[in-house]
Amino acid sequence: MAGNSIGKEFIVTTFGESHGKGVGVVVDGCPAGLPLQEMDFREELDRRIPAEPKIVSARIEKDTVKILSGVFKGYTTGAPIALMVENKETKSSDYEAIKGLPRPGHSDYPAHIHYGGFNDYRGGGRFSGRVTVALILAGVVAKRLLGRYNVDVLAYTKAIGKVKSDKKFTASEIRKNRYAAATRCPDLACAERMEEAIVTAKEAGDSLGGIIECLALNLPIGVGEPLFDALDADLAKALFCVPAVKGVEFGAGFKSAELMGSENNDAFLVKGGKVVTATENAGGILGGLSSGMPIVIRVAIKPTPSISKEQQTINISSMQLASISVKGRHDPCVVPKAVPAIEAAVAIILADHLIRSGDIPKILKEH
Amino acid sequence: MAGNSIGKEFIVTTFGESHGKGVGVVVDGCPAGLPLQEMDFREELDRRIPAEPKIVSARIEKDTVKILSGVFKGYTTGAPIALMVENKETKSSDYEAIKGLPRPGHSDYPAHIHYGGFNDYRGGGRFSGRVTVALILAGVVAKRLLGRYNVDVLAYTKAIGKVKSDKKFTASEIRKNRYAAATRCPDLACAERMEEAIVTAKEAGDSLGGIIECLALNLPIGVGEPLFDALDADLAKALFCVPAVKGVEFGAGFKSAELMGSENNDAFLVKGGKVVTATENAGGILGGLSSGMPIVIRVAIKPTPSISKEQQTINISSMQLASISVKGRHDPCVVPKAVPAIEAAVAIILADHLIRSGDIPKILKEH
Amino acid sequence: MAGNSIGKEFIVTTFGESHGKGVGVVVDGCPAGLPLQEMDFREELDRRIPAEPKIVSARIEKDTVKILSGVFKGYTTGAPIALMVENKETKSSDYEAIKGLPRPGHSDYPAHIHYGGFNDYRGGGRFSGRVTVALILAGVVAKRLLGRYNVDVLAYTKAIGKVKSDKKFTASEIRKNRYAAATRCPDLACAERMEEAIVTAKEAGDSLGGIIECLALNLPIGVGEPLFDALDADLAKALFCVPAVKGVEFGAGFKSAELMGSENNDAFLVKGGKVVTATENAGGILGGLSSGMPIVIRVAIKPTPSISKEQQTINISSMQLASISVKGRHDPCVVPKAVPAIEAAVAIILADHLIRSGDIPKILKEH
Amino acid sequence: MAGNSIGKEFIVTTFGESHGKGVGVVVDGCPAGLPLQEMDFREELDRRIPAEPKIVSARIEKDTVKILSGVFKGYTTGAPIALMVENKETKSSDYEAIKGLPRPGHSDYPAHIHYGGFNDYRGGGRFSGRVTVALILAGVVAKRLLGRYNVDVLAYTKAIGKVKSDKKFTASEIRKNRYAAATRCPDLACAERMEEAIVTAKEAGDSLGGIIECLALNLPIGVGEPLFDALDADLAKALFCVPAVKGVEFGAGFKSAELMGSENNDAFLVKGGKVVTATENAGGILGGLSSGMPIVIRVAIKPTPSISKEQQTINISSMQLASISVKGRHDPCVVPKAVPAIEAAVAIILADHLIRSGDIPKILKEH
Repeated sequence: MAGNSIGKEFIVTTFGESHGKGVGVVVDGCPAGLPLQEMDFREELDRRIPAEPKIVSARIEKDTVKILSGVFKGYTTGAPIALMVENKETKSSDYEAIKGLPRPGHSDYPAHIHYGGFNDYRGGGRFSGRVTVALILAGVVAKRLLGRYNVDVLAYTKAIGKVKSDKKFTASEIRKNRYAAATRCPDLACAERMEEAIVTAKEAGDSLGGIIECLALNLPIGVGEPLFDALDADLAKALFCVPAVKGVEFGAGFKSAELMGSENNDAFLVKGGKVVTATENAGGILGGLSSGMPIVIRVAIKPTPSISKEQQTINISSMQLASISVKGRHDPCVVPKAVPAIEAAVAIILADHLIRSGDIPKILKEH
Repeated sequence: MAGNSIGKEFIVTTFGESHGKGVGVVVDGCPAGLPLQEMDFREELDRRIPAEPKIVSARIEKDTVKILSGVFKGYTTGAPIALMVENKETKSSDYEAIKGLPRPGHSDYPAHIHYGGFNDYRGGGRFSGRVTVALILAGVVAKRLLGRYNVDVLAYTKAIGKVKSDKKFTASEIRKNRYAAATRCPDLACAERMEEAIVTAKEAGDSLGGIIECLALNLPIGVGEPLFDALDADLAKALFCVPAVKGVEFGAGFKSAELMGSENNDAFLVKGGKVVTATENAGGILGGLSSGMPIVIRVAIKPTPSISKEQQTINISSMQLASISVKGRHDPCVVPKAVPAIEAAVAIILADHLIRSGDIPKILKEH
Repeated sequence: MAGNSIGKEFIVTTFGESHGKGVGVVVDGCPAGLPLQEMDFREELDRRIPAEPKIVSARIEKDTVKILSGVFKGYTTGAPIALMVENKETKSSDYEAIKGLPRPGHSDYPAHIHYGGFNDYRGGGRFSGRVTVALILAGVVAKRLLGRYNVDVLAYTKAIGKVKSDKKFTASEIRKNRYAAATRCPDLACAERMEEAIVTAKEAGDSLGGIIECLALNLPIGVGEPLFDALDADLAKALFCVPAVKGVEFGAGFKSAELMGSENNDAFLVKGGKVVTATENAGGILGGLSSGMPIVIRVAIKPTPSISKEQQTINISSMQLASISVKGRHDPCVVPKAVPAIEAAVAIILADHLIRSGDIPKILKEH
Repeated sequence: MAGNSIGKEFIVTTFGESHGKGVGVVVDGCPAGLPLQEMDFREELDRRIPAEPKIVSARIEKDTVKILSGVFKGYTTGAPIALMVENKETKSSDYEAIKGLPRPGHSDYPAHIHYGGFNDYRGGGRFSGRVTVALILAGVVAKRLLGRYNVDVLAYTKAIGKVKSDKKFTASEIRKNRYAAATRCPDLACAERMEEAIVTAKEAGDSLGGIIECLALNLPIGVGEPLFDALDADLAKALFCVPAVKGVEFGAGFKSAELMGSENNDAFLVKGGKVVTATENAGGILGGLSSGMPIVIRVAIKPTPSISKEQQTINISSMQLASISVKGRHDPCVVPKAVPAIEAAVAIILADHLIRSGDIPKILKEH
């Protein structure tokens, strides 16, 4: 059974391939009454493409969305919202040459098996980073919806390769600075060193990964549906659907495994009439439910598998060893492009769960 | 909308609370023709309770399962399999005293909000580690099913607090040694130091967490249903449903964020007529599909939040600060008990996906 | 993929077989705060067994329910509610004799194929009318929930074989009289003739079917989730899951196919400040949404396939013709027993949809 | 929670409105390896528009499909198939005039409530018959898939108003004649009288309904997933999603309610080495599973609610009585247009269930 939908109330179904007609999404279950127009998608789509050309691939996809359904007189109607971005610049010939040579670190080989050889392999087809555009489209709808309830989702780069920023940022610093840097790190001094690291890797025909942190602010208390639709469980599922993600942790995460209970537990206290915690090791989630504190997620992104350095692979017809150098337009580091995708994945799950919990109604009131 | 079911083909619905009549599960979609009897559950249920009384809580739940439906003449019928374990030793009075004082690190506070105060709070109720018994019951069915197809799931303790074992074990070493140690670490020398660490924490009225590694061996190539039911995504979701899990990573995981692409990519090669990879950084999953290499997962378990050390909390009626010392029977470290739960979570998802991919049929052939 | 669950918010999963340990249900998604105790199930379970022994089978199942989870201090908690009724009087030997001879009109033959011969064939196993007990258990929960919102579901017998009542009853007549008659027809004179018809059929070793009408009153306007979870679509689905149902129609139903648009359309008018319709041909549903008028459903029940009259079948081993006379305890007409099952099916779908529409919240207010 | 998807393996999500950009569908779960091109949709889309202009509306929608994703080199890839038909001839001004006056027999009034007034009301918006185009698109994919396994779905008109054909047709007669008649009745003499009845109704500013029968041939035995995803249950659900359907019955249907068990039971016998039944009262389904005999379904279609005759309604702003005469392009009888929609609904469910049962694999073999 296929699995191209996610969410139970805010149901996102994506379609499309890297080198086909385009990529798109159907969002079913978005409440009626949300203002939405094609212009709303522009900024977020542009954020996928850092202004700094040194650190991105040559394929500059200037994407524009078409709203195919579900919006009438500028508001969502409650019917499914279909959105699509057409593919423009596709150079499929790049891929024919290496068709029978699975690229190390890519899904080529298991995808060939899974789909019996019928899959569209051009540019990774359905597995391409290009498909995150559909996620971002749904994420824009989710974020506008969350925005009405003051919930904010903010992702930013925390590390590129071995260059890390351990600064703790305020929400307004993140908002102000993250898109100022091509690497999406709000610590601008560090951002520059990250950029240098990417350029160095690119020049060596190699690539880098990194770590993205994502905050979700102002979530109501008690959101999540344990046991199996626990908030952290659903967030993790969505995050692992973003290509190149290899690890997800909440709050203190892997570090909590080394702490004593007395160190790791967040003591409760009252602040401004609200129950808060003294520390934030739980990352805003207790027992699969939001605690009212900021959600803090960290995601590990592996280095781009497409590198021009020569690698060893096999020819799947002859089962002989072969060598491969992946040419074409590839990002030496996908972390900057992944930032809005991570944000979209988180926003989609939060929108879904806020509808599930009843915090967002089926029909929005006039603003 | 509630969320107490997981899986799309092998559908697991759990029910029950820590201090109610019992905990149970309905498994819908288990293929017909799998030999199954009550005895098959005994060993796995016993594994929850390490033999070494020093490191576990005083509540020794000697659990026995009842098969309520779905099995006839010793074989599964294809109808839903309902399984239940009754609760015996429950001391509910322990919990009445601290009812209005949410325990730090526990779900008490958000659960109170989420369920409007109607939730069964005794022993954490639906959020208790006790509920993993239901997961383990479903896991036994899943593992027997996987076993017919030679797929093996092996979890073991890799770290308790700061005591870690970096040994790489063969599958047969893991099988042989992990249940020999109360801490479920197959590195028996290290296991002893882990045990000491737990005893020390316990004596201090404190607790420890740790890291569990889980392998899945002999999975066919191409299992998983991207985009959204990617194999790693579904595994992560299930793993975050095990209480106390705060991080999940596959293969090199968070470490891959620091590697160059040329270091992290696993080169393909041919071995014994099969396509394999030279390294195992991907953890057996590429693009959300199994690659044919062993699945390698690491899970961070936080220290038990229930500690007898005094902690700060609030009284939710008066909104005044209060202090709490969690009495009663608590494990100073839940990692050993979590090992079979992690295994169950992984086995359930693999069973689900092997049916989804068609690798396991709806009716099993005679063995 | 198996399909033993129904509903998306009020999710009902049934388990159990006719001659196994019992039959049960897990209800996930019932709002927290609904008063519920074992006693609440008694009346409805008793309604399955008409007082008049002449028209029912000799198997008098005096059923008592056990609440296994999800209820605490007399209220639902928001956690899954597991309910079970044990089987007592089971004479399995009745069925061994005819194991290889599929009974005409029963599921024996396709079930044997579907489950590869592993299915529990005793008394029809999973396909037995006995399994409607699980439906009724979930229906009791649904009806109590609907009752809090003044929604009433009332089914009653409209025809047994060729004996029909064309009277239109008020809701209070239905409530008062339907369970007064063993045949569940509130037209008591007609009910007597129905009973005679059943007795005559029984004496001839034969059986009868009939028609059940079901009303749902006081539903809010606009309930339903078109296109595919249209209210009538989901009701029809649930109704066809009640054994022996062969037809479902709403309002004028099949008769509307013969009417002119000007006759069939229900004109709108205002009555007591509310929008109502002058006629009720639509059966309370327009475009898959409740219109605010009473829902009117009619269901065709086929005659009991188990008859003692000799019938022709085949021996599935030898593929030779054979004759069969179904002995054992069988109802000569299942219509009276089906009345509470139809009511349960309708109540479950309405509860599900009223939660979906937001008309019933996740946490019930104190009454 | 919205409900614009149907199916569990062959998952159909529709989008679009009558007067928006277009209507479309995403099919997720279609096996890889099915030949598919835009041309394949033409014939079925053309079948919606009978050649005889006297009996249809003036809106002649010459529809052409775009395959947006999921097909590569002429074959389905296993990825989601997105299909879309643009709306061309839309006269939205027709509808603005009657915006506040709900049309009797239409969903206008409950839809207004359900969507809080945000719904696209032009031409019924999401509730328009126009939306069946999306169903038909998915049906084309389903029918091509079923065709590979020799399963044939054949719907045709059995009655228009009071004009009925009681002939029993062979499959080849149906195939040959049903699209020869504008009314889609293979009994060509009767078809002519049906056409006259429609013309008469049209001239009177009125409309007609009718009955469609649908056969499904060559289905394997044992298809269906009881209890709740019984084959008849899922078929009925899909059929009630076709606009204007008010009743669904299988085999003898409502008539079986009047038969004795000995009359209604279909005796088993062996024919050509296969188990068949002497009669076909069950309509090919026993216990929610296909029996191997032809599936026989009858569907009641109500008369078109849009009529030019004056009707009574209310003004929803003023709550005053008003009169309405529905102008614009309306079919005086939707039965002919509904025939391919019924076929599509049945085909979609059968494709879904044949994948569920394992009769259709995930990857199709070369033909």
